[in-house]
Amino acid sequence: MMESDRAWESLKASVTELRDLRAVGGLLHWDENVWMPAGGAAARGRQKSVVARLRHQLLVDPKLGEALAAVGQSQDPQRQAAARNLGRVRDRAVKTPASLVSERALASSEAFAAWRQARASDDAALFAGPLARMVELARHESACIGVGVHPYDALLDGYDPGLTLERVQALFRPLERGLVALLDGIRGAAPIAAAPVAMSTADQRRVFLRVLPALGFDLGRGRLDTAPHPFCMGMDPGDVRLTTRYDEADLMSGLLGTIHEGGHGMYEQGLPGHLRGSTVDEAASTAMHEANSRLWENRVGRSPQFLGWLAGVVAEETGIRLDLPALVASCNRVEAGFIRVEADEVTYNLHILLRTRIEAALLTGELSVDELPGAWEEQSLALLGVRPPRPSLGHLQDVHWSQGLFGYFPSYTLGNLYAASLFRRLEEDRPTVWECVAVGDFSPVLGFLREHIHSVGHLYDGEELLARVAPGRDPVGDLLDSLRARQGALYGVVQAGRASGG
Amino acid sequence: MMESDRAWESLKASVTELRDLRAVGGLLHWDENVWMPAGGAAARGRQKSVVARLRHQLLVDPKLGEALAAVGQSQDPQRQAAARNLGRVRDRAVKTPASLVSERALASSEAFAAWRQARASDDAALFAGPLARMVELARHESACIGVGVHPYDALLDGYDPGLTLERVQALFRPLERGLVALLDGIRGAAPIAAAPVAMSTADQRRVFLRVLPALGFDLGRGRLDTAPHPFCMGMDPGDVRLTTRYDEADLMSGLLGTIHEGGHGMYEQGLPGHLRGSTVDEAASTAMHEANSRLWENRVGRSPQFLGWLAGVVAEETGIRLDLPALVASCNRVEAGFIRVEADEVTYNLHILLRTRIEAALLTGELSVDELPGAWEEQSLALLGVRPPRPSLGHLQDVHWSQGLFGYFPSYTLGNLYAASLFRRLEEDRPTVWECVAVGDFSPVLGFLREHIHSVGHLYDGEELLARVAPGRDPVGDLLDSLRARQGALYGVVQAGRASGG
Repeated sequence: MMESDRAWESLKASVTELRDLRAVGGLLHWDENVWMPAGGAAARGRQKSVVARLRHQLLVDPKLGEALAAVGQSQDPQRQAAARNLGRVRDRAVKTPASLVSERALASSEAFAAWRQARASDDAALFAGPLARMVELARHESACIGVGVHPYDALLDGYDPGLTLERVQALFRPLERGLVALLDGIRGAAPIAAAPVAMSTADQRRVFLRVLPALGFDLGRGRLDTAPHPFCMGMDPGDVRLTTRYDEADLMSGLLGTIHEGGHGMYEQGLPGHLRGSTVDEAASTAMHEANSRLWENRVGRSPQFLGWLAGVVAEETGIRLDLPALVASCNRVEAGFIRVEADEVTYNLHILLRTRIEAALLTGELSVDELPGAWEEQSLALLGVRPPRPSLGHLQDVHWSQGLFGYFPSYTLGNLYAASLFRRLEEDRPTVWECVAVGDFSPVLGFLREHIHSVGHLYDGEELLARVAPGRDPVGDLLDSLRARQGALYGVVQAGRASGG
Repeated sequence: MMESDRAWESLKASVTELRDLRAVGGLLHWDENVWMPAGGAAARGRQKSVVARLRHQLLVDPKLGEALAAVGQSQDPQRQAAARNLGRVRDRAVKTPASLVSERALASSEAFAAWRQARASDDAALFAGPLARMVELARHESACIGVGVHPYDALLDGYDPGLTLERVQALFRPLERGLVALLDGIRGAAPIAAAPVAMSTADQRRVFLRVLPALGFDLGRGRLDTAPHPFCMGMDPGDVRLTTRYDEADLMSGLLGTIHEGGHGMYEQGLPGHLRGSTVDEAASTAMHEANSRLWENRVGRSPQFLGWLAGVVAEETGIRLDLPALVASCNRVEAGFIRVEADEVTYNLHILLRTRIEAALLTGELSVDELPGAWEEQSLALLGVRPPRPSLGHLQDVHWSQGLFGYFPSYTLGNLYAASLFRRLEEDRPTVWECVAVGDFSPVLGFLREHIHSVGHLYDGEELLARVAPGRDPVGDLLDSLRARQGALYGVVQAGRASGG
């Protein structure tokens, strides 16, 4: 065996162990959210902490650094990608003291428990201390990593390597202008009433378990469970766990969330598992992950074609007859509300803009945790025109900060932007996509994503992959066009742009 | 801080990490049995393997050896216990090569999947290869540990330190004589018919969730789920998971199993969590663990007093009226069958004797995996008088070997022996126990176990703890007495002995 092949084999063994240990951490997190009894919180914090510490120890091992350096010399694209991907993760780990890794794992378990209680009892004070601790740890982490010009940059870089606040703002500014204009138009039009579909949890679950495999989610390699804050945990392409929640007054609330997580899950199930150990068996970026989930949830899940097919499934499973025109209008109506995960496609991105501003200000220290509730109300009024009456409808609504996920939120809107351009490309590539969706054949959508995104894994970073799959497109323009074409048209306020299917 | 205190603090930190990592392994195992989709099997094997390897690495760390040596000098009983308990675990780890640890974890995941399939399809051939591999690994482990005179000794020592095949046989021989004599008498008496209680799974689950907290199992620090082979996973006193299964034709099958696991679970919940890091917060031995579960299942769960109270619970929860005399007789009838976990109290121990003989012979190589089905049939005929018609009713019935748990089976009968003496002591100590049980007050039983067993943790080993709690008793005599008093009396064949309550 050549010296370089030995380094590659050694690297692959390490990467596999790191990957497996990350999956172990994933299971600890999943279980904490889905099944763990309340009494297990303290021990779970320690368990997550020791796994994080051991994973960190493997990452900073100098032998791994040597193997990386050797593999980095290779001309093979897969090996280059492995050296690049793992090199970044290792660089961040080397810069992060082991004590911070353990502390963050421990603090996030405490913060999660506090957040859950604070949100349930609508008592922001219960979360203030743990949140201040998480902000402090995020600032500490940012200082240790020390890339970029803004303290937020080092955190963004953890989700999308190289991403900066400046780049985010360059995309978000024109998007904000377009969204505000569209929203103004819609506010001037005749309002559309919500038409929620009441359904028992048991019936909803049966419907969800019909929809997921129809889209392409393989239940033999995954599960669907219930959690207070839905998420997807991909531990391996063979074991991908979705969670959802049920609102008996509103089928679509849980269903769109399930489709969203299913979008993440199909990406995880479609990753090139045979390239395990190369890091190429991972998603291209957090934003590309969100592009998948948002594409399924919004482009597919809110389309009249999908909803028409769904009406048949619902009738078969529950005997309930849906009023299709009312359902389509309801799924695409626009109304500024308090809750991000329940927001329509237009205002959703304004929720993200709000969080991005607040996170950046928390990171610099411009904004303190004490000032946070006030700042949230103010931004909510400015961007969405509504003031949350309770903290559970305001800054307590999202799980992210309790988990230390500062810098994650922009990925959702980046995902919407990527999804818009990807979907334009998909419609060109598979021109019969809407006829297929209308009859419950989702293979054009899944096939496109499998071919161009999933199977490519992390050979390229997200933005580069987007540029390769949808070259020359303008994601901000594509997203605004699609919103104008669907939501704008629904309200009769189409201002410009090309037609967009669905 | 004194040097010795520094060593103690360092030891406690290591013990806590080892304990937490064991809990992580426990969650991986629990999830594999309860929720994991089939597609996750290969990755789960790797995950368990990496956790086992890292735990082994922490155990063999020379710094831990130094701390242990320093703490071993202490005169404090808690520190002495810690040095003794961890010292043994570390000695075994030092003697076990890391490669064997990883291999065993990996092989056991494969063997578990193969066993599950083999049992479901009644195809012994599917499990033969994986089983041969597990036997080979057990023999390898035994050779590495190298204690005792028989290859089985090194494995027994892993569950009950110092236990040998010779000691097991010294207890099992007189027990066998007594059991065979009792069984012969019962076979000559008029048979008692089984009176199974049919109940839907949903109703059974409601009953189980009434019974468990009544006994003293805290559902805020634990759970009850479904698994093909019931077990208890104590990850922390605050997080103890029970699993059970449901037979809609027979309430008591699942209920007695649930009480058994609940007995384990209450032990785990009652351990002195405040002594975390000292190893004293662990159970005294595997046999003492089984003593708890068998005491609850058999002494309590099959008693007329418990069953009388249960009839009220069942009526409240389901409206079903139980025929109490028939139920009591049915729960205490004796009939040699194929399945250990469904066996009555008398023949149960013969199932264990069978397994002990077969395991010992597999370990020496006297018996090959190919010869195993034949040997099982032969021993089953000799000890129980029945020949299993299918492998799923024979050597494929138990999960243990697929998990590499060779040497565990004797603990069940040791547990029955301990439980018999413990219960005699309990009846002296809490003379109103049966009046209390009859009205659903189980506090005399739990109180006794909490005081004398649970809260003591692993300050003493199992056999020493038994001798302290029930000094001067003969467990074989106590078990035979209690079987004669309950089952013997039921069949009118009481031969000797004192009366035993319940």
